[in-house]
Order: sequence, then structure tokens, then C-alpha cells
Amino acid sequence: MKIESFRTPGLGDQSYLLTHEGIGVLVDPQRDVDRFIDAADAQGVDVRFVLETHLHNDYVSGGVEAARLTGAELVLPAAAAPAYDHRAAYHLEDIEGPGLTLRPIHTPGHTPEHTSYAVIIEGRPVAVFSGGSLLVGSAGRPDLLGPARARSLGKLQWRSVNRLAELPDDVELLPTHGEGSFCTVSGTGSYTSTIGVEKADNPVLQTATADEMADLLLAQPMPIPAFYQHMGPANTLGVPDIRRGPVPSLSVAALELLPDDTTVIDIRSRAEQAAGYLPGSLTIEFADDFGSWAAWLAPHGAPIVLVASANDDRAAQAVTQLAQVGVDDVRGVITDLSDSRLETFELRELDAFRPLVDGTTPVLDVRMPSEHRSEPMPGAIEKFLPELLSDGLPVDIEGARRVLVVCGSGRRASIAASILGARGISTVVLDGASAGELARTPVAA
Amino acid sequence: MKIESFRTPGLGDQSYLLTHEGIGVLVDPQRDVDRFIDAADAQGVDVRFVLETHLHNDYVSGGVEAARLTGAELVLPAAAAPAYDHRAAYHLEDIEGPGLTLRPIHTPGHTPEHTSYAVIIEGRPVAVFSGGSLLVGSAGRPDLLGPARARSLGKLQWRSVNRLAELPDDVELLPTHGEGSFCTVSGTGSYTSTIGVEKADNPVLQTATADEMADLLLAQPMPIPAFYQHMGPANTLGVPDIRRGPVPSLSVAALELLPDDTTVIDIRSRAEQAAGYLPGSLTIEFADDFGSWAAWLAPHGAPIVLVASANDDRAAQAVTQLAQVGVDDVRGVITDLSDSRLETFELRELDAFRPLVDGTTPVLDVRMPSEHRSEPMPGAIEKFLPELLSDGLPVDIEGARRVLVVCGSGRRASIAASILGARGISTVVLDGASAGELARTPVAA
Repeated sequence: MKIESFRTPGLGDQSYLLTHEGIGVLVDPQRDVDRFIDAADAQGVDVRFVLETHLHNDYVSGGVEAARLTGAELVLPAAAAPAYDHRAAYHLEDIEGPGLTLRPIHTPGHTPEHTSYAVIIEGRPVAVFSGGSLLVGSAGRPDLLGPARARSLGKLQWRSVNRLAELPDDVELLPTHGEGSFCTVSGTGSYTSTIGVEKADNPVLQTATADEMADLLLAQPMPIPAFYQHMGPANTLGVPDIRRGPVPSLSVAALELLPDDTTVIDIRSRAEQAAGYLPGSLTIEFADDFGSWAAWLAPHGAPIVLVASANDDRAAQAVTQLAQVGVDDVRGVITDLSDSRLETFELRELDAFRPLVDGTTPVLDVRMPSEHRSEPMPGAIEKFLPELLSDGLPVDIEGARRVLVVCGSGRRASIAASILGARGISTVVLDGASAGELARTPVAA
Repeated sequence: MKIESFRTPGLGDQSYLLTHEGIGVLVDPQRDVDRFIDAADAQGVDVRFVLETHLHNDYVSGGVEAARLTGAELVLPAAAAPAYDHRAAYHLEDIEGPGLTLRPIHTPGHTPEHTSYAVIIEGRPVAVFSGGSLLVGSAGRPDLLGPARARSLGKLQWRSVNRLAELPDDVELLPTHGEGSFCTVSGTGSYTSTIGVEKADNPVLQTATADEMADLLLAQPMPIPAFYQHMGPANTLGVPDIRRGPVPSLSVAALELLPDDTTVIDIRSRAEQAAGYLPGSLTIEFADDFGSWAAWLAPHGAPIVLVASANDDRAAQAVTQLAQVGVDDVRGVITDLSDSRLETFELRELDAFRPLVDGTTPVLDVRMPSEHRSEPMPGAIEKFLPELLSDGLPVDIEGARRVLVVCGSGRRASIAASILGARGISTVVLDGASAGELARTPVAA
């Protein structure tokens, strides 16, 4: 048996290709399925099963397409009942494959239907695809279906992870969610583990009761990205195949011909954005988590136009990331801003930023509340980035002419710059340092 | 082992109390739980388990209250994950009780989490609580979660009912849904059966494939009562205990003091209603299905005032029926209309009604489309009763002064009379006969 792991860092998720004696099992494939199919082809294996551990809340699955392209059976938990054809996996009813057995283990908690799959070879469990139940050093969040059910789901998670912990110590633990995922309660930096290591180290396996587990999982509330609300329904109802092929090149003038709700997203470096971006666009510098931020901040369902540097292959990567979270309607990419009126914002590194903090210019901290708590920035106005759009601007900066914006690195603050810019506020972004570092920096003599 | 069955005819549902060697198991209790608890007390048994087969879509469960009042364990399917405390039942993982074993069998189809419970005594299955999976002569509807998932759920239902059919022939079949339920696909007039009888007679067990099953279950679309959309969420989130005690007596004048959206529902006989009802009230004659019609037709969440005859204990029954479908806000009962301005409508039996059908006065048929098809009334304007409110009046009667209204018996037509009356249209109701009978009646010479 061999396990190939495919990380999707921006989502903090892993997909897996298990291969054994010429057959393949694909688990929780992201929507950009070609990378998995290419890997199976490279290994010369015949993919027989595509397994989904749950109806994902953080991304749009490529399961249907992967199964069709490979001729594999698409397996989902029996309680998922999605709108498309599939084989239903029932708790503890083995699915026999050539040379291996897949044992569905109903592990509700992250979601009600959530099912893990133990892989049994020659009568011995060797690995378990634990999806969003038992994670490395943690467990999947139980609060994504709303606060009312969070505690019940948290309690269900206790039995689920303890059930998985009954597997032999040397069984490989292969979770879908990992470091960087908004679906985990905490992160450790590792992506896979073994049952034995987790039994020794994972705090969720040290809890004595279901109530203790729920307390632990719900102790530090985390934000729920706004686009998550659309992922469960998309995965229940099914989505079209991912769109392939180049995205058209557009001129700025062509924007006039697009629907009014078209959202322009500038993916260039924040230095380039600061020097001049299209008024009204969202400046979301490309990175691993571009897709999540874009889906979180752009109106759901609206057409998208990207702004990128010429010949920048990150535009194609951005389109893939958007597809992973169900944003399909990318109309084109603008690479030439030369004749356009542009807005600017200012980027300053710590030393140059510090003197601006004079007690009269408002400082806006767009980090999550938990970051502010762990590394405070006294005196700053706290507003988590997405809430600038969902709640409106804090009253203290509503009428300001100029605002200093800080975050963990400058990345989110530079997104905020375009949101504030659209409200007529000029922005100075703390670049390359965190709000906490700023707070700790002594005022120069 | 003894099974006591409790019908709720207006919902077409049964709850059950199984007793064996001094202990009781209550299954799918309706919200008016006192009748079950009284029965358990009368038998001197200790209720140990309250089982829910699924998150019901047609009524509000009394499970939480029944479990608390009896000290029983509340058991729900592991994939239900409701917002309240419960024990999760996992597929094929036995729940051991004193003197008996309950075997959860995950039977998705009516709903995704749906779970049946086989009762095993001395190692032998003797009964199965099949909820909304295998019914007498039928199976539970798979379309209540929306058209997109209906086919998948219909296909899941195939394996579910066939799994139950593997139980021994003499096992008692104890379904929740039965004759008269909007959750069944058809009805037979019986409420319980045995596995053997169903294997021989039930059309759903004669289907050869999951696709054939889905075709059968979805062949004749049935309406979905509007209030169903509120039942699943109520049962997932939990509801307060049923309200006990008398409902206050109100005067007509007191209506002035109630919120504007208060809905007045006249539950008297249609003869009394026809002779004079409060303008703007809904005339829903009391019957077994009063609660369903009231919940379907009254705005969700609005306060209710009933109009009843003095000293009529049907007012209390009406309040219970309303509670069964989650309508709790009954402000009072009016029994004295003597000083009020009243509206009227006309009731005529077949012989007296027939001469009015003159080809110029519109005839409105408020039956379901399927009834119209099976027993046609040519020339009538078809509009299923609830659609008079949800869609508005058909254009052909919008401006009419007088309309002839027909249904299956006069019951629904007399409800329509008050809906039309509120739009200034006077109504003659065909009483005691169906639209089909009217169509077959020759015109008198």
C-alpha cells in the first residue's frame, strides 16, 4: 500500500490517493481533479473508488467528476443522500475492493453524516481516512452547522474520535482537514499521523466525557467564512465539472459591458496594488489562500474579473482556487492598466510606520479577535477584515480621511486598503510586521 | 411483548408503546405526550427508551418531553444530530434493554438519517419500528427534502425497505406513517402488518432495482403541506413542552387588542359557519385533520384565536392538534358571536346545487390535481385549496360576484368560502357530495 497526499494549502485540506496492487482509491478530491487523475495514471493504477468522508463545508468537491473520469465508484456516507448517483456507505458494512477492504465508520461530529473509512489489507487495518473527525492534534469543528447544533455535534465527535482511537496504534491517520483549515479547532503543523501518536498526544483523546469534548472544541470560537454557507448545498446538490482552458484577456474598457455586480479582484503583489489599482476593485494579493479570501469577500454568485500582471501564471492558479470554492464565473483577466485612472494606498514597513501612530490618526486592526487577544495592539480599533464589508465601517473611522491599518503581516491590511479606498478613505498599511510587533516597538526618541 | 398503538388520524401517523416484562419503549411520540405516559402508567411499566425513527417533517415531536417525564433515554439516529441531548443510535449497533434488544437499522430514504429499530427478544426479532421507511402497502415519501434530492432518497429507500424485508416473515411491522398521511405514497387502510404480508403484497417490495423504486415512489407527485417546512427545523432544534391548561375565553371585542396578524379560525360545523362567521376569519370545520389544514392555511407564527360553539370540547382538541404541528400561540376562544356583524355563505346538497351550474357562474374545484384527474369535473376551474392563498385567486374568478365551489365532500369548499368571502365573492358550496358526483349528475329535465 502506498499513500500519496495532495495538499491544498489555502484550504488547509488534503486529498489522498491510496494505491495497492494496481488499484487506486481517491479520497476527498478537491475540484481540480486532473492532478489526482494524472497521479493515478503516472502510477498506472486503476482508480476503483472515490470516497467522500462528508458533505464538505469548506470546498466544492471534485468527487463526481473524478469518479466519472476514472470509472470509479463514488462512495458517500449513507446519510449524505446527495442529489447525484453514488454508492451509500453504511456504518461498519465493509466495501470489498480488489486486494483491500474499506470499512465505513460513521463518525458524526464535524457533520452529522460524517463517515471515516478504515483500510483493511490482509485482515489488518493499516490506515484510516478520518476526514473531519480525528485530526492531527485536534478534531474537526462541530459548529459549522450553526450554534444550536454545535454542542450536540461536539458531543458526537467524542465517540467518533474515540472509536477511531480503538484502531491499532500503527494505523496511519489520514485526515482531510489540517493545518490552516478553518475546519480544525487548532493546528500542529503536521498533516498525517498514526493512531498511536494521536492517542498519546492529541488533546481531544484525553477528554474523559462527551461534554468535556464539546467544551474543548467550542472553547475558542473561530469565525466561519461567509462562503461556507454555500459549500454544503453545492456538495449536496452537485456541481458542474471544473472549467478548463484559458480565461479571456480583457481590457479595462470591457468592464463597461459586464453586469453591474461584476467584482474586480486585483491579484498582483501588494506593492504593485499600492502603486495603483482600479477604483472599486478588491486588492487580494495572490497567495495559497487567495480563493478563500476572494470567496469570502466578493458577493456570492457575482461575475469575477481578475487583474494580474502580464504573463503571470498565477492568474490561472487564482481561477483554480476560485473553482475550488465554487466561484466559477470568471469572465476574464485584465493585465493592462496603463490608460486607467488608478487609486493608491501606502505601504510602510515597521520603522517608517511607527512615527505615524500619533494618537490622532485612527489605527484599524483587521485581525481575528483571537489574534488580537494573543498579541494585543492597544488603542487599535478592532474589526476583523470580512466584517468591514458585512457590518460596515466602525464609526470611529467612518468619516476619517486617513487610517492606519494593521494585521499579521500586511496582507489582510492591504485588502482592507481597497475596501476603505472605496469609501474615500486613504490608507497606510503596516507592511511585513504584525500589529503586535508594532505595539511592542518603542517610540523612537 | 405487547404493542399499544396510538393513532393520530389527522396526521395519518401512529405512535407506539411497546411493553415487555415491566418495561416500556415509546416510539415516535406525538407532542401531546400525556396519552402515552398515562398508558404506560396504566400498564404499570417503566418507560426506558423513547425512540425517534427520524427528524419528522409532518409533526412536532414530543420525544424530548416524553423522555424527561418518564426518565427514559431519548434515542435518535446518530446522523440526526439534533440540538438537544440524546443517545445516538448507530447502524446495527444494538441497544441493550432489560429483557430486550433494540437494533438500529439505518434506513435512509424518507429522510437521510432515518433509522428503523428491530426489537429482539430472546435472540429473535419480533417487531420492527419502521418509521417512514417500509409502510403498510407502501413506503415513505422521498421528496419532502426537495425535488433535487428526491430521486437519490427514493433510490436509498429501495435498499432500506429490502433490508427490512430480510427480517423473518412473522416480525410485526410497525410504521409511523400510515393511511391519511401526507408522508406516504399511497394508502391501504391498515396501520400495521407483518414482514411476510408486505413481502407478498407491498408493491415497493416487488421493485427489482433502486431506480424502479424511485420511479414508483415519484410517479404521482403529491402536494407538500406548506407547514412541513417548519417541522424538520423544529424537531432538529427542539421545541418547548406542550402547553397545558384551558385556553382563555375571549369576546369578539378583544380581537381589537390582539396583534394585526392574529388569525381567527372558526372550527364550528360548516352549517353554523354558513349561517354566519366573523368577516376575515378562516372557516375550518373541526375534524381529525383540523390541525394540518389550520397550519397549512394560517400564516406561520401568527397568533391564533378560535371560534367555537359554547361548551364545545372540540376547542381543546383543536388546540392539541395545533400543538402537534407546532402552532402554540392560541390566544383564546370566542364562543359568542351574537352582537357581531357576520358574513355568510350558502351550502347546497347535490340536487339543489346542480341547477346553479348554468355555464355562466364559475365553478371552482379546490381538490388536489390527482383527485381531479381520477374523478374529473369538466368545466371547473381547478385550484387546490391552499393555492388560493399562496398563488392568489384564479383570474377567472378574481372579479366574480358569485362562485360555485366544489371539492370531495364540501369540507374544503367551505374553507374556500371564507377565503373567497374575504375577497368580496359570495360562495355556494356543494355539500355532501364530490365534484365528480356533480359531473355525473344528469341535468334535470
